[in-house]
Amino acid sequence: MVAIISLTPELDKQSEIPLYQQLFHYLKGQIESGLLKENERLPSIRQMSAYLSVSKNTVETAYQQLLAEGYVHSRLRSGLYVMALEKLEGAVEQKRVKTGPIMDPAAKLPHAINFEYGDVELEHFPVRLWKKCLVDALEECTVEVYGYGDRQGHAGLRGEIAKYLYQARGVVCSQEQIFLSAGTQTTISLLAQLLPLPRDIAMEEPGYHGVRTVLLNMGRNMIPIPLDSDGISTEYLKQCEAKTVYVTPSHQFPLGMIMPVQNRIKLLQWAYEQDGYIIEDDFDSELRYQGQPIPALKALDTGDKVIYLGTFSKSFLPGIRLSYMVLPERVTQEYRNKLEAYSQSVSPLIQAAMYRFMKEGYFESHIRKMRKLYQSRHKLLLRTIQEQLGSQVEVIGERSGMHLLLDVHGRSSDELVMKALEHEVIVYTPRKHWLDAEACPPSYIMLGFGGLSEELIREGIGRLKQAWFG
Amino acid sequence: MVAIISLTPELDKQSEIPLYQQLFHYLKGQIESGLLKENERLPSIRQMSAYLSVSKNTVETAYQQLLAEGYVHSRLRSGLYVMALEKLEGAVEQKRVKTGPIMDPAAKLPHAINFEYGDVELEHFPVRLWKKCLVDALEECTVEVYGYGDRQGHAGLRGEIAKYLYQARGVVCSQEQIFLSAGTQTTISLLAQLLPLPRDIAMEEPGYHGVRTVLLNMGRNMIPIPLDSDGISTEYLKQCEAKTVYVTPSHQFPLGMIMPVQNRIKLLQWAYEQDGYIIEDDFDSELRYQGQPIPALKALDTGDKVIYLGTFSKSFLPGIRLSYMVLPERVTQEYRNKLEAYSQSVSPLIQAAMYRFMKEGYFESHIRKMRKLYQSRHKLLLRTIQEQLGSQVEVIGERSGMHLLLDVHGRSSDELVMKALEHEVIVYTPRKHWLDAEACPPSYIMLGFGGLSEELIREGIGRLKQAWFG
Repeated sequence: MVAIISLTPELDKQSEIPLYQQLFHYLKGQIESGLLKENERLPSIRQMSAYLSVSKNTVETAYQQLLAEGYVHSRLRSGLYVMALEKLEGAVEQKRVKTGPIMDPAAKLPHAINFEYGDVELEHFPVRLWKKCLVDALEECTVEVYGYGDRQGHAGLRGEIAKYLYQARGVVCSQEQIFLSAGTQTTISLLAQLLPLPRDIAMEEPGYHGVRTVLLNMGRNMIPIPLDSDGISTEYLKQCEAKTVYVTPSHQFPLGMIMPVQNRIKLLQWAYEQDGYIIEDDFDSELRYQGQPIPALKALDTGDKVIYLGTFSKSFLPGIRLSYMVLPERVTQEYRNKLEAYSQSVSPLIQAAMYRFMKEGYFESHIRKMRKLYQSRHKLLLRTIQEQLGSQVEVIGERSGMHLLLDVHGRSSDELVMKALEHEVIVYTPRKHWLDAEACPPSYIMLGFGGLSEELIREGIGRLKQAWFG
Repeated sequence: MVAIISLTPELDKQSEIPLYQQLFHYLKGQIESGLLKENERLPSIRQMSAYLSVSKNTVETAYQQLLAEGYVHSRLRSGLYVMALEKLEGAVEQKRVKTGPIMDPAAKLPHAINFEYGDVELEHFPVRLWKKCLVDALEECTVEVYGYGDRQGHAGLRGEIAKYLYQARGVVCSQEQIFLSAGTQTTISLLAQLLPLPRDIAMEEPGYHGVRTVLLNMGRNMIPIPLDSDGISTEYLKQCEAKTVYVTPSHQFPLGMIMPVQNRIKLLQWAYEQDGYIIEDDFDSELRYQGQPIPALKALDTGDKVIYLGTFSKSFLPGIRLSYMVLPERVTQEYRNKLEAYSQSVSPLIQAAMYRFMKEGYFESHIRKMRKLYQSRHKLLLRTIQEQLGSQVEVIGERSGMHLLLDVHGRSSDELVMKALEHEVIVYTPRKHWLDAEACPPSYIMLGFGGLSEELIREGIGRLKQAWFG
């Protein structure tokens, strides 16, 4: 500890400069000139205030500012110590907070074959065209692109989305009903804030955990509704109290069934009778490989009761973080009014680039190309599973999308995931998508294939054979 | 209405193709070939099902699909009518939903001088450098930039932010404590979902309405705490039940006072005694024009009780929609665990570009340039107000930031806004920032100047003189 007698600040109580600032500048000068040396302890607040005849508050404030500006550092229950000047620069680098990882096995095994759901094909991504759209948008250099942007989203982009929804999904809507957000979870969070959603919300069990978690964390009571072979069971839905339901009719997530038109009509009738809402998450409808396309549930909704959610994460790129919803006409104005207090969450630059990308027809041809590519990977994956794993596994949900489930009869997913890791393959249990995780069949494994080349798919399934049955 | 006898579908009840599909394809064919003409009405479901001896369900399903694919349209309580084929293409354009505007006077008067808060200077924006960073990030073409990205945010960017916070704001934190989001409102919404924030939250009155609205819409009880001349009154705060408070100590929004160090320490002591949290929104601390810089409240927080919010909207560009928070060490791990169910809301492309922009030192020199620019505009604005409006107005909150308030003695803001509009100047009442809007002094007017050149500031204040006192 520094001898208190060596400190002789001349404090001027008549000065306009507050005492704590005088003291702060004095001590700072002592440290900078080296008179107070590294690791010397400052006198305690009590000692210093008594010695200088100033209030403890004055000393504390001066000390806090020294601390804030990095001249001293604090040791728990011990006091303030002078920082080595040459270390001041590195203070941030030195600070480490002990944290566990956000669970991500891929970080540990960067070269493993990763069947993670959500990855997309990058090798065929139209970098040049996307760059052109981005740069053009940037060079516009207008307040529309550089400022906060339209609260509801870029009007031109909303128009393009309306056209796309009509052509691809049979949804007739106006761009006035379309609201953009940075991802489906941001959309759901906004919806629950602005519509607002009731306390009881029914949801497919299993169902997309990302949406369920947001709603649970926003105080909603999520009522799990069992699925039958065609998707959510309207019979069970009728028995619960909820008037609002979240569904994935065009590709049930994660089980993969496609809801037939008759069931969709039953579901709509339920909503009309309840005077409730259906939240339709149409997250990957672009990627359907078998049978004829079925229009979105929203396309059948003559009663204006479907809230439609769409995203560019699967059809284009997760990395643009761009999702949207189509609101029923009856609530559009109410929602717009409440939106006056909210900023748009998607960068207007990204929106303006996507507007160009769609308007020029690049998006349409990109989807056509991707559908073909994913279809051929999907076919290869199914064939390789058949050849390599044969009757030891059952494939679930093989008609569309960028993932499928395997039922590895009689085995447990924890063991399967571990054994796969030993062979440098990363696979996942879909457990988190069940509200009641115990209800997830333990033998289920989820395989996403969007980010894997045909070669890696073949190699990966071969390794799984070795890992699981070798 | 079309004569039902002219419709002769050959429905094969033995076929594998469902009856509704056979009927759908028959009717679709009739429309496409022009045998069913524009504006002909389809027979009712009852008539059609009796005529064909099929269930009403079959007919209804076929009709719904015709509707969904746009072959017919529905007129309320009348039935389904055949759509003109050439109009099919234009269906989306025709659909208009009647909505009022999201309030925005600027849309009506695009050439008016707009003193809107939140606009930033674009003319001096380093487009070339930003484009370089963006294109470099894009051409990396990695899954880090094109995929969902790190849930917490780009690790390199978080490191740059940690360094910046240390150098500019005296905040010593690790990048592990930093969490990125698409705007302060998204941050607050996540915070309330994941921490989670208690029901009672104290807040400055007046205070930033964007944050208040999110918390109110998430079911929180917002307790207004009066301000004194130095910012939030700790005395009043102590009298309320809340253990968490939202504050803007470095530049009170919207009144503009700067909280002195002594008061900051009192506020911290309150938090330590309550075992509560202080949410510090440090939204524009870069733009301080008078007096010496005061470190962030977080820099004084030896008790690990401050949640620090920062944004690039003021210091760089609203259009990148990039904000962040620094969590106390004690809750960082808990938050990270819960974040496993959430995707990042900021485009990883934007994050990677911003990382480059900071790492190369462009951000630092941009801030220096902007501070100088805004300072000179701010000075000009104050001088022009003094010259033109003189003692008829009082300026409030003139020490920092990109806005100030005028108290136009004895007048009402509604009248002042209207009169300004007549002279093509857009000004705003700050009323929405009061929880109790009635408590906002009616004579207050808010002037943002971030987006206005010196010439427009001069012209704008000149017009206000005419409008208000002419």
